[in-house]
Amino acid sequence: MKCEIISVGDELLIGQTINTNASWLGEQLNNLGFTMAHGLVISDQKLDIINALSVAEKRSDIVIITGGLGPTNDDITKHTLTEYFNTTLELDKAIEQNIIDYFNNRNLPILQTNKDQALLPKSCQVLPNSRGSASGMWFEKSGVIFVSLPGVPYEMKGIMNDHVFTKLLDLKGEGSVVVNRTVRTHGMGESFLAEVVKSWENDLLKDDLKLAYLPSPGIVKLRLSIIGKDKTSSEAKLDYYISELNKLIPDQIYGYGNATMEGEVGKLLIAKNQTLSTAESCTGGNVSKMLTSISGSSSFFNGGIISYSNQSKSVLLDVYEKYIDINGAVSKQVVEQMAANVRLKFNSDFGISTSGIAGPNGGTDEKPVGTVWIAVANKDKVISKKLNLGYNRERNIHVSSLSVLNLLRLELLKN
Amino acid sequence: MKCEIISVGDELLIGQTINTNASWLGEQLNNLGFTMAHGLVISDQKLDIINALSVAEKRSDIVIITGGLGPTNDDITKHTLTEYFNTTLELDKAIEQNIIDYFNNRNLPILQTNKDQALLPKSCQVLPNSRGSASGMWFEKSGVIFVSLPGVPYEMKGIMNDHVFTKLLDLKGEGSVVVNRTVRTHGMGESFLAEVVKSWENDLLKDDLKLAYLPSPGIVKLRLSIIGKDKTSSEAKLDYYISELNKLIPDQIYGYGNATMEGEVGKLLIAKNQTLSTAESCTGGNVSKMLTSISGSSSFFNGGIISYSNQSKSVLLDVYEKYIDINGAVSKQVVEQMAANVRLKFNSDFGISTSGIAGPNGGTDEKPVGTVWIAVANKDKVISKKLNLGYNRERNIHVSSLSVLNLLRLELLKN
Repeated sequence: MKCEIISVGDELLIGQTINTNASWLGEQLNNLGFTMAHGLVISDQKLDIINALSVAEKRSDIVIITGGLGPTNDDITKHTLTEYFNTTLELDKAIEQNIIDYFNNRNLPILQTNKDQALLPKSCQVLPNSRGSASGMWFEKSGVIFVSLPGVPYEMKGIMNDHVFTKLLDLKGEGSVVVNRTVRTHGMGESFLAEVVKSWENDLLKDDLKLAYLPSPGIVKLRLSIIGKDKTSSEAKLDYYISELNKLIPDQIYGYGNATMEGEVGKLLIAKNQTLSTAESCTGGNVSKMLTSISGSSSFFNGGIISYSNQSKSVLLDVYEKYIDINGAVSKQVVEQMAANVRLKFNSDFGISTSGIAGPNGGTDEKPVGTVWIAVANKDKVISKKLNLGYNRERNIHVSSLSVLNLLRLELLKN
Repeated sequence: MKCEIISVGDELLIGQTINTNASWLGEQLNNLGFTMAHGLVISDQKLDIINALSVAEKRSDIVIITGGLGPTNDDITKHTLTEYFNTTLELDKAIEQNIIDYFNNRNLPILQTNKDQALLPKSCQVLPNSRGSASGMWFEKSGVIFVSLPGVPYEMKGIMNDHVFTKLLDLKGEGSVVVNRTVRTHGMGESFLAEVVKSWENDLLKDDLKLAYLPSPGIVKLRLSIIGKDKTSSEAKLDYYISELNKLIPDQIYGYGNATMEGEVGKLLIAKNQTLSTAESCTGGNVSKMLTSISGSSSFFNGGIISYSNQSKSVLLDVYEKYIDINGAVSKQVVEQMAANVRLKFNSDFGISTSGIAGPNGGTDEKPVGTVWIAVANKDKVISKKLNLGYNRERNIHVSSLSVLNLLRLELLKN
């Protein structure tokens, strides 16, 4: 089935707002097996909207229209649709009550223009919006589906997830429920990962699940999706395949959905009532910054030392000068002492450290740019690991930070 | 003049790539006084491209087409345009030499498909691409201008800036050269800033310069633009107005164009041969992270202490415990000692510090969330400042970091 997306809004045409709605809709619908054929951006003008609708009606099976449903005068999509589908507006009492409740719950004053958002076209099927006051609308004309949604991304996505995807899949006749899961991995490149999970992936595909690899620096997300008749059995299938995946790459999976590495580490530290301090050289404060981005991080994070100069490594972290002279600041010996000593300095249960050549300058034949040592210390031991990263400074800092947090995460899971 | 943007590429339709090209083009063209009327996203298919061109020809004066100019088989825009404009491809020797030079300069192997990118439609005016191997093309048909550009944003923007904007303004007959300048400010909100520069802004508009306020957390960028017949006199006008602005808000302007606060601070430290260390509490490493994102920052940044817990403030930074007990960790006394002592600990010329309540929890009536103290110390003195920020943790960390770097910047400029 051919899909067309019509985005209404001058702010999109003049680049004030980037059209992320169209990208999101395109990605989701493509993932569900619909054919994305056309995207349009038009201004908030009646004639442009009507022209776009009549062109879409001739060439597409499904037309999603976003934007122009707000309460102000420049929002004309609803009135234009009412005219295009030759119907009239009527008050939807249930929706009116929803809107009143929505404003009351937030202690916001309610205006007549807000209540007027409950005036909806007679011939449409109303798609309730639990996140705002503009309802979605579902029209059918000459076998073509038209869905009108608000332009606020959070509200638009809510209505799509709550109502539209399921209805569209019903139409397509391939089932009624789509369930997605995202598995977040660190420590294995996309192609290597694909090799390791090969037979699992084959079984998955045979079982009509879909898999997408979504790589970003230091992270490969695996998105599994399934379209089925029944949510419970679909979720059970996903649970099964994710548990099988966990057997293959137990150390690489650090979280699910929107989890972050620092968030997962923070949760483990809190659960185990452990504290942490950091000694950062090449990451320059980034590991600490990630940890302290978490609200409530003061319950597990005592602080850290950014020992950027060699002098500061010896003066503030008591790293033996001879270690720096003989092995260099980027070495197993130095990074292990950094982790062990920062733990003591801050009186923490764990100390973690990084030392490396972030680049683009400073590399040698023996230690090229991207050479990074990371370490984790507790009262019993110090473990360390060498990373061989690339030439991009920002990426090296980011991946080193993720790596040392993952090393800590794996240690926390052992205890 | 009505503009239409046609973006060619399946990756845009299925949301793999967000269409930032269309946003950028819309913003730039709108800024130059063109009317943005339509945006289209279509797939790499001949019939779709031809349909889009013929619709655009009827309703628009200027049509910008991006994408589909690469060397591989799925890139069909050039061949489709050749057909649409009823012309043939011929070898452009100068462009061929450019392509050969481009690959040779980068030590890349050159394939026949790369050289074939010098085969260009006879009837078009070629727009050379100094950043890649796909040339831009300028066609005219029935009074409508069609411009075809590569989809790689960096190359597309390069060709627009090098050739297209000037040619379009010539057509419009309002002058020939557009010059933009961006002034970056920190420390004054958008509306307050507008009040302070009011009469300057009025003069500016009378002189046919345009001004846009572009606010983001902690930063307001002012974009000045002028369309004139002559680049030299336009630039002189901009120079004049920017120097006048500098008299009004000398402390707020920290840089121009793509400058960053940390980059400007780094340049000043290097120029004055001064070193720096940081003592961070509420910013949790973010100030250090910003500074060390600069390649070569080890020449001025010695390191820092993230004294997140009260204990670490007294043990590692020698802050008097009685100061913490009496005044609290978020106080002038504590933040000044942090800055002074971290300077000594790292043997640096300057020490900077932050201590505050980033939120969302931890506020009191006396010190609500968003209360932040910042300080700068050198061998002669310590200065400090209290900030009253908002309730968003991420934003508070970001704005506090910018603020302490700006306080340091102003001190560096005094010496």
